Amino acid sequence: MIIIGEKINSTLKSIRPAMENYDAKAIQELAIKQREAGADYIDVNAGMFHNEEPERLVWLIETIQQVLDAPFAIDSPNPKAIEAALKVNKNPKPIINSITDEKDRFNSIMPLAVEYKTSIIALCMDDKGMPETTDDRVRIAERLIEKLTKEGMQLEDIFIDPMIRPIGTGSQNGVVALETIRKVREEFPGVHITCGLSNISFGIPARKLMNQAFLVAAMTSGMDSAILDPLDNKLLSFIYATEALLGIDDFCMNYLTKYREGRIEV
Amino acid sequence: MIIIGEKINSTLKSIRPAMENYDAKAIQELAIKQREAGADYIDVNAGMFHNEEPERLVWLIETIQQVLDAPFAIDSPNPKAIEAALKVNKNPKPIINSITDEKDRFNSIMPLAVEYKTSIIALCMDDKGMPETTDDRVRIAERLIEKLTKEGMQLEDIFIDPMIRPIGTGSQNGVVALETIRKVREEFPGVHITCGLSNISFGIPARKLMNQAFLVAAMTSGMDSAILDPLDNKLLSFIYATEALLGIDDFCMNYLTKYREGRIEV
Repeated sequence: MIIIGEKINSTLKSIRPAMENYDAKAIQELAIKQREAGADYIDVNAGMFHNEEPERLVWLIETIQQVLDAPFAIDSPNPKAIEAALKVNKNPKPIINSITDEKDRFNSIMPLAVEYKTSIIALCMDDKGMPETTDDRVRIAERLIEKLTKEGMQLEDIFIDPMIRPIGTGSQNGVVALETIRKVREEFPGVHITCGLSNISFGIPARKLMNQAFLVAAMTSGMDSAILDPLDNKLLSFIYATEALLGIDDFCMNYLTKYREGRIEV
Repeated sequence: MIIIGEKINSTLKSIRPAMENYDAKAIQELAIKQREAGADYIDVNAGMFHNEEPERLVWLIETIQQVLDAPFAIDSPNPKAIEAALKVNKNPKPIINSITDEKDRFNSIMPLAVEYKTSIIALCMDDKGMPETTDDRVRIAERLIEKLTKEGMQLEDIFIDPMIRPIGTGSQNGVVALETIRKVREEFPGVHITCGLSNISFGIPARKLMNQAFLVAAMTSGMDSAILDPLDNKLLSFIYATEALLGIDDFCMNYLTKYREGRIEV
């Protein structure tokens, strides 16, 4: 699993004050903790600062890359903020989070991905909004993959995000997500599939349980990445267990190692 | 999910003394507790009593049906014990656990299923032993379903068991189980698919975590029944969460009800 650590996000109350006060140490520590816990990418989001978003994002990147060389997930729909971030980034190939098939968004963000040779998260959404059905989502994924590869992007740099809607707002939202993942995986074995995991449980009780169940179900359906809290030991335990079940952990070596390290939580 | 409660089993140390001492009260209480926790079937197994198996199984059934009218899963490969149990059973349609495609076992158990109009668990195994590959398992499932329906059995009375092998003894054992489930479900939407859930985690640490992950993965792949411990609140919580994710719990009604009843464990 490719884990995108979600904690440095201006919409999260716990870290917002550190951003507001330019508390470099708190930000650096949170980045390092996520990396040590298994994050492959460190997501950085400064969207709540509105007009200041570009400077704030630049500050986050410069602050974190002083102490960590993990790649960033640059989390913004704003091409100005993304470009400012890419300009100062010195860490390995970042991922832009995210593009869609909305015409304006695609046309403003795509050139940045090409110029800076980034990976990209592509949301299954277009100018008609968030599609209702599995088929509509898969069609958008197909179109995005076609357009992205035509621009020279490799399949392994594309992370399709099926757009998870909360299970509490529609009984079929889980099925639509899982079916979209399964179909995209079947059709494009070479792309990555990711999602914002905790969206599934928005508004219902016992969110952690639902997130854990959805993680396993989505991995079983073909998802190989997720935007999640890497400091949630229990959630990561489910990743290790499911990787063993899916045959991508030979002899349960990683599972057993994590267990010996005390990082499997039952 | 159709839950087969596994607790009244002579191989389990916790209940063995109650069986040895003919402690009717303890057996009855355990049966009632399982039923109240959500068991659709009460499994009864007296295999450890060897030559006394038929009388012991009869005693279990007579003892439990005094206080409970739940259907039994008659857990034995021994046609004499199964027949003795079926003769005294007064509860609704039982399930025989289990038949295989081994010639002798099939020919000795099948007539009992027909005569007593039972449901049946059919293990993906034949005279060549436990098959290695997914394809071999699916082929045995196809053959069993063909033979069982030819004898007049309805699809909804057949519970295919893919035969779970521990993930600790082979890195592909999870994949083989999940793929077998997926293919049988695709080919035969009308049959039930079940398994002895905890077999997957035999011999590895943090078994409960692995069982929970496998439960979700197997349900996602099409399994709609399991032989498990219905008193394990956490495990059942994953059933409720996964049913919501798979679109078989409208508006998360059951999930929310269980939550309000304090039966969702996070």
